[in-house]
Amino acid sequence: MTQEHLDARRAEILEGARGAFAEHGYEGATVARLEEATGLSRGAIFHYFENKNDLFVELAMELNTRFGDILLEGGLHEAFRALAAESPEWLAVLIETESRMRHDEDFVRRFEAKANDTSPRIREWFEEQQAQGELRDDVSSVELGRFTTSLLNGLALRVAGGDPFDIEAMLRLLDDAIAAPRRPRRVKRPRPVAKKA
Amino acid sequence: MTQEHLDARRAEILEGARGAFAEHGYEGATVARLEEATGLSRGAIFHYFENKNDLFVELAMELNTRFGDILLEGGLHEAFRALAAESPEWLAVLIETESRMRHDEDFVRRFEAKANDTSPRIREWFEEQQAQGELRDDVSSVELGRFTTSLLNGLALRVAGGDPFDIEAMLRLLDDAIAAPRRPRRVKRPRPVAKKA
Repeated sequence: MTQEHLDARRAEILEGARGAFAEHGYEGATVARLEEATGLSRGAIFHYFENKNDLFVELAMELNTRFGDILLEGGLHEAFRALAAESPEWLAVLIETESRMRHDEDFVRRFEAKANDTSPRIREWFEEQQAQGELRDDVSSVELGRFTTSLLNGLALRVAGGDPFDIEAMLRLLDDAIAAPRRPRRVKRPRPVAKKA
Repeated sequence: MTQEHLDARRAEILEGARGAFAEHGYEGATVARLEEATGLSRGAIFHYFENKNDLFVELAMELNTRFGDILLEGGLHEAFRALAAESPEWLAVLIETESRMRHDEDFVRRFEAKANDTSPRIREWFEEQQAQGELRDDVSSVELGRFTTSLLNGLALRVAGGDPFDIEAMLRLLDDAIAAPRRPRRVKRPRPVAKKA
């Protein structure tokens, strides 16, 4: 098989596995169900991924990377809109599993090894936006980033729970929180005539 | 036993159970561990609570109610500060379990039956604050509430994960998102003397 074929097969497995996780949850996505969802044997699946944990972390990181890419290319609004359009089922599994796995050493190690790729890019994005005067500079770029990702994660919880929100209203409020204040428009006033002494 | 005794016993069970959930997770908090943590027999525990599900929902709602009370009495800042001071372990279990239980009909029914007590009070709080001119009124009070609770939940995820943030910075950014714009201070200018015709 060519590298192209290998990459395509890998992507197919990820796509099928995401569907299985979304439908059955992490525990419920048994190897038999992963086989069914991908149309491949366990031998083929675990040729590409070490185990189910590895497959899951890869999918979780893929989402993070995608949001990172959207942020860098299209800005914050596009990243938030992409989140609002995500599959509620997949987000629910992701949040639940990430949270539960925080005490699983193997999971944490895999996750951190991959997470290192995206976090600095996002941190830099906030620093640059601040330096360019797009974001306010009276709060550190680190805290602006924490505020923004907390809001993003809180909205992910809403999407996962099927709870509605108006994404345009959220973006407007976010902008008012973190954007640099617009310079007050200079109102032209007739110059006062100097009093004659 | 007097009603006071019954209430005290009930509170003791909740306190012990919260500790067991925080330490062992929802699944890991077996009946034997609940007995150990509360110092009571399963017979005594399940005299007060129908089952483990019921106990957990009660604890989850207790947290919601407490935040609601803090919000109504002390305002948003106090509610956010209380969250920042919450036990990371207990928040982690809460988020993970709430998310996983969303497909468990019994859980959803119990949860919704109790959730009805607090949500309207919080909704009203946002409406009132808006009517009093404390919150901006160019975005609906419903969306202001959704924005605020999303941020709160996103920060809860951070607390649960042991990820730091500067609570004062978060509050400042939140205020700038949702507070009514301050009326421009009126600058006292000498009144122009009317021109004599």
